[in-house]
Amino acid sequence: MIEAFVLVVVKPGTEEKVYNALAGEKHIKEIYRVYGEYDIILRVEVENIGELDRFHDEILRRISNIEMTETLIASSYRG
Amino acid sequence: MIEAFVLVVVKPGTEEKVYNALAGEKHIKEIYRVYGEYDIILRVEVENIGELDRFHDEILRRISNIEMTETLIASSYRG
Amino acid sequence: MIEAFVLVVVKPGTEEKVYNALAGEKHIKEIYRVYGEYDIILRVEVENIGELDRFHDEILRRISNIEMTETLIASSYRG
Amino acid sequence: MIEAFVLVVVKPGTEEKVYNALAGEKHIKEIYRVYGEYDIILRVEVENIGELDRFHDEILRRISNIEMTETLIASSYRG
Amino acid sequence: MIEAFVLVVVKPGTEEKVYNALAGEKHIKEIYRVYGEYDIILRVEVENIGELDRFHDEILRRISNIEMTETLIASSYRG
Amino acid sequence: MIEAFVLVVVKPGTEEKVYNALAGEKHIKEIYRVYGEYDIILRVEVENIGELDRFHDEILRRISNIEMTETLIASSYRG
Amino acid sequence: MIEAFVLVVVKPGTEEKVYNALAGEKHIKEIYRVYGEYDIILRVEVENIGELDRFHDEILRRISNIEMTETLIASSYRG
Amino acid sequence: MIEAFVLVVVKPGTEEKVYNALAGEKHIKEIYRVYGEYDIILRVEVENIGELDRFHDEILRRISNIEMTETLIASSYRG
Repeated sequence: MIEAFVLVVVKPGTEEKVYNALAGEKHIKEIYRVYGEYDIILRVEVENIGELDRFHDEILRRISNIEMTETLIASSYRG
Repeated sequence: MIEAFVLVVVKPGTEEKVYNALAGEKHIKEIYRVYGEYDIILRVEVENIGELDRFHDEILRRISNIEMTETLIASSYRG
Repeated sequence: MIEAFVLVVVKPGTEEKVYNALAGEKHIKEIYRVYGEYDIILRVEVENIGELDRFHDEILRRISNIEMTETLIASSYRG
Repeated sequence: MIEAFVLVVVKPGTEEKVYNALAGEKHIKEIYRVYGEYDIILRVEVENIGELDRFHDEILRRISNIEMTETLIASSYRG
Repeated sequence: MIEAFVLVVVKPGTEEKVYNALAGEKHIKEIYRVYGEYDIILRVEVENIGELDRFHDEILRRISNIEMTETLIASSYRG
Repeated sequence: MIEAFVLVVVKPGTEEKVYNALAGEKHIKEIYRVYGEYDIILRVEVENIGELDRFHDEILRRISNIEMTETLIASSYRG
Repeated sequence: MIEAFVLVVVKPGTEEKVYNALAGEKHIKEIYRVYGEYDIILRVEVENIGELDRFHDEILRRISNIEMTETLIASSYRG
Repeated sequence: MIEAFVLVVVKPGTEEKVYNALAGEKHIKEIYRVYGEYDIILRVEVENIGELDRFHDEILRRISNIEMTETLIASSYRG
C-alpha cells in the first residue's frame, strides 16, 4: 500500500466547493482546508503506483477549479 | 479576532483593476499594490477562521483576474 | 483547538534523524517522511495560536538540521 | 518616500527572537509574526531607494538568524 | 528614472510570439528569450513608479499569452 | 549537440494524456511520468539552441494541457 | 524496482565537486550537471522505498555542499 | 558565444558587499542590485558552456555570502 499527501491549489474563491467535491472520493482518507501556499491537503491511500496514476487521471480530472496538485509519497509513518 | 495578510497574484495587466475592485471590500483594512513575486498585499481582519473561509469563498470569488492568493495568519503584531 | 500541518525541509541526508527526533514531541499527532519538495510532514494540534508560537520557538529550535518549515493552519476537516 | 514590505524567513525556532530584535529598528513601521511560507512581515518606510539599500546592508546584517528576505516595493496604497 | 527587470513566464509554446510582440514596446530597452524558470527577461526604463504601473496596466495587458510577470526594481548598476 | 531536461507541469488530471501525446515527438529521447512538484520529465536532444527554440515553439504548442515547462540545459553527463 | 529523479541544488561554486563526488555512487544510473533552478539531476534506481530512504540517509549525507534535494518518483517510462 | 543571466540570492545584509565583489569579475558584462525574490542580477558572456561551468566553479566559489544562483541561458536578444 502507498500512502501519499496531495497538496492542492484551487482557483481563488472555490476552496469550499472543491473541498466538498473531493470529500466523498475513493482513496481520500482525510481532507483538510488550510491557509498558506496550498489550499487543501489530502491524505490518500492506494494499492500501488498504478492506482495513484488512476487517482489523478480519473478523480482529479472530474473536479473543476483545481489549478495545481503536488503529490508527496510517504515512506514512513508514526501516529 | 484574526489578522491575516493575503498575498495576491493577478493576471498580468489587471493589477490596477483588481486593486480597485478589492479596495472597498469588507474585512480589508489596507491594500497595497506592490512589485515583486506578488502584485497586491491585503491586510485583513476577521472575527474567526470561519469568517476567513467566507472572505475567500464569497469576496475573492466575485472578483475576476485573481490567479493566486496565499494567506498568512498573524500571531503577533507591533506597530 | 488549532490543527495545523508543518511541512519540513531538512539538511539532505538527515531525514531519518530529524524524523526520529520529532517523533516523540508533544503536540505532534502524526509524522510522515515523504518524497518531493518537502521531507517531513507533521500534523500538529495546539490549544491556540500562542501555543503554536511556542511549539515553533521551543520544540523546533531544539532539533538540529531543520532547514525550513512552512505551517498551514487548517480551518476544516473531514476524515 | 518609498513604502515596502519585507517578507522574512528565519532559521526555524528563532521566530520570536528575530521578531523581538527587529521590533525596535528604525524605518520599520509595523512588524507581524505570521504562519505560512514566510515567518515575519515588515512594513518599512524609507526616503528613497538608497535608504532602502542601507536598511538592508546595515540593519538586517546586524540581526542573526534571518535566512531570506524578499522586499516588495509598493506603488499605491489605500487604508 | 527607475530601471527594472521583468521576468516573464508565458504559455508553453508561445515564447517566440510573445517575444516578438514585446520587442517593439516603449520602455523596453532590452529583451532576451531565456531557458529556465522564466521564458523572457525584459530590461525596462521608466520615469517613476507611476509609469511602471502604467507599463504593466497598459502594455502587458494588450499582449496575449503572458502568464506571470515578476518585476525587480534595480537600485544600483555597473556595466 | 545540446542535451536538456524539460520539467513539465500539466493541468491536474491530464497527466496520462499529455504523457502519451509527448511520447512520440521528435527530439524527446526519454519521457517519465513523475510525482512531486512536476508531473512529467523529458530528456531532449537538439542540434543547437535554435532547434531548442523550435522544439518549444512548434512541438509544445501543439499539445494541450501543458501549463508550465522549465528547461534545464545540461553541460556534462555521466552514465 | 523504483525509478526516481533527484533534483539537486548545491552551494554555489561547488557544482563540479559535488558532480564528481556523486558520479561513482551506487544506485545512480545517470548524472547531469544542468543550468537553471537546479544544478544537478540524478536518475536513481532502487529496489524499494526503504532503499530510497537509505540512499538519502547514507549516500547523500556523506557528500558535502548539497543544499537541497527534491526527489520525484516515476510511475511510467518510455525511451 | 553564450549570453546568460545569473539571478543571485545573497545572505541578508551582504547585498552591497557581494555586489562590489562581483563587479570587477571577468565575463560579467553588467551587474544590477535589485529588490524582489533575487538580490543581484548578472549578465554574463562566455565562449561556450565549458566556460560557463568554469565561471561558476572558479569565480562564484571565491565570493562569500552567495546563497543561491539560478542561471538562465539566452537564445535570442533584441536591444
